[in-house]
Amino acid sequence: MSTGTRSGPEGTLRKTDRTTLRRLPDRGSYDRETANALLDEALICHVGFVMDGQPFVIPTIHARLGRTLYVHGSAASRMLREGKRVPLCVTVTLLDGLVMARSAFHHSMNYRSVVVLGQAHEVTEAEEKLQALRAIVEHVAAGRWDEVRWPTDTELRGTTVLALPIDEASVKIRSGPPKDDEEDYALPTWAGVIPLRMVAGEPLADPRLGDGIRPSDVIARYRRP
Amino acid sequence: MSTGTRSGPEGTLRKTDRTTLRRLPDRGSYDRETANALLDEALICHVGFVMDGQPFVIPTIHARLGRTLYVHGSAASRMLREGKRVPLCVTVTLLDGLVMARSAFHHSMNYRSVVVLGQAHEVTEAEEKLQALRAIVEHVAAGRWDEVRWPTDTELRGTTVLALPIDEASVKIRSGPPKDDEEDYALPTWAGVIPLRMVAGEPLADPRLGDGIRPSDVIARYRRP
Repeated sequence: MSTGTRSGPEGTLRKTDRTTLRRLPDRGSYDRETANALLDEALICHVGFVMDGQPFVIPTIHARLGRTLYVHGSAASRMLREGKRVPLCVTVTLLDGLVMARSAFHHSMNYRSVVVLGQAHEVTEAEEKLQALRAIVEHVAAGRWDEVRWPTDTELRGTTVLALPIDEASVKIRSGPPKDDEEDYALPTWAGVIPLRMVAGEPLADPRLGDGIRPSDVIARYRRP
Repeated sequence: MSTGTRSGPEGTLRKTDRTTLRRLPDRGSYDRETANALLDEALICHVGFVMDGQPFVIPTIHARLGRTLYVHGSAASRMLREGKRVPLCVTVTLLDGLVMARSAFHHSMNYRSVVVLGQAHEVTEAEEKLQALRAIVEHVAAGRWDEVRWPTDTELRGTTVLALPIDEASVKIRSGPPKDDEEDYALPTWAGVIPLRMVAGEPLADPRLGDGIRPSDVIARYRRP
């Protein structure tokens, strides 16, 4: 499907013409462990697919198991009906900070992102499908799967799971202070980074929660990395 | 370009076959003010474009002025070279919480998202280009534009700005507690929402910051909504 493939060693993503970073290549990486860590940390991804020449970009929950990225949804969803027939792009982005330079031009953000390209296939085997759904619940809150009612056969049939190989992919990371033009360092403007992070607040109980049901450790100790 | 167009009143986005929510339509809205508020709150968007049938989804900074969404980047970037020739999809997503249901199946997230479809055009008029770049800096940190060195002609020439009409678009919002199957409310499992929010930390000064330069109010008082 792609040209210019370079076979990489075990821990390296497949670098192709399509995943070679042209802009600021020093921000890029093809390291599989780095990609895995970002895919695992990001709570959601954005899935891109094409219909009649029009791209669509839809946010959804994902999970990684080994070298496979799973996304799921209703069997009736457009993304999942189309996604199993067409090439996908799945992107995750973690925002780390606002980069405040001395010039408008060098303002930026600190971020970590992964772009995965490829053809997804629908998971039809019952055990793999269940394990993918388990991974998706565990991705959001580790330990939660064992606390909840598992999917029924009817629910499983109503859920489509897509598997995308994590193979042709790239990582892009910007970190650190602004990089201003040399002559601008003399300006009296404050420059630096405003760090950003996602934080979890106090759990809000369902108004219909039964009397005396307390949050488990999974919930009460939930923290973002 | 699209079929099934319904002309809406002033404050309504254009609902087409392509932006009609098929899944859980009660989560959808075509209200322009709601879309504007989400586009303004989100720090980044994900831009989808197609090359040789392959979708690409790239995170980038955006800004809104009236009914136009601007994205920018190096004139050398693939996204911006391709984006001015092909249909785009720009999606912003704000994560508000993890929805912990009693069943695996009803786990979800609280989020607010906007999907904008359309054909972008490159901004070539100098004053509109400058105003778009101003809007992008102000979008990230209101008040910052007046503190920094403005773009030179060379920088302006090296920057491509795309304008996408905010017209054919839809909003999707999930909020509130989990919605479990009626019989599952009797389970002894804690259920509710873990709220999520993006917070800004203490500003980190550039190691090369000149002596005695203090953060302005724009920086020192920076808060996320």
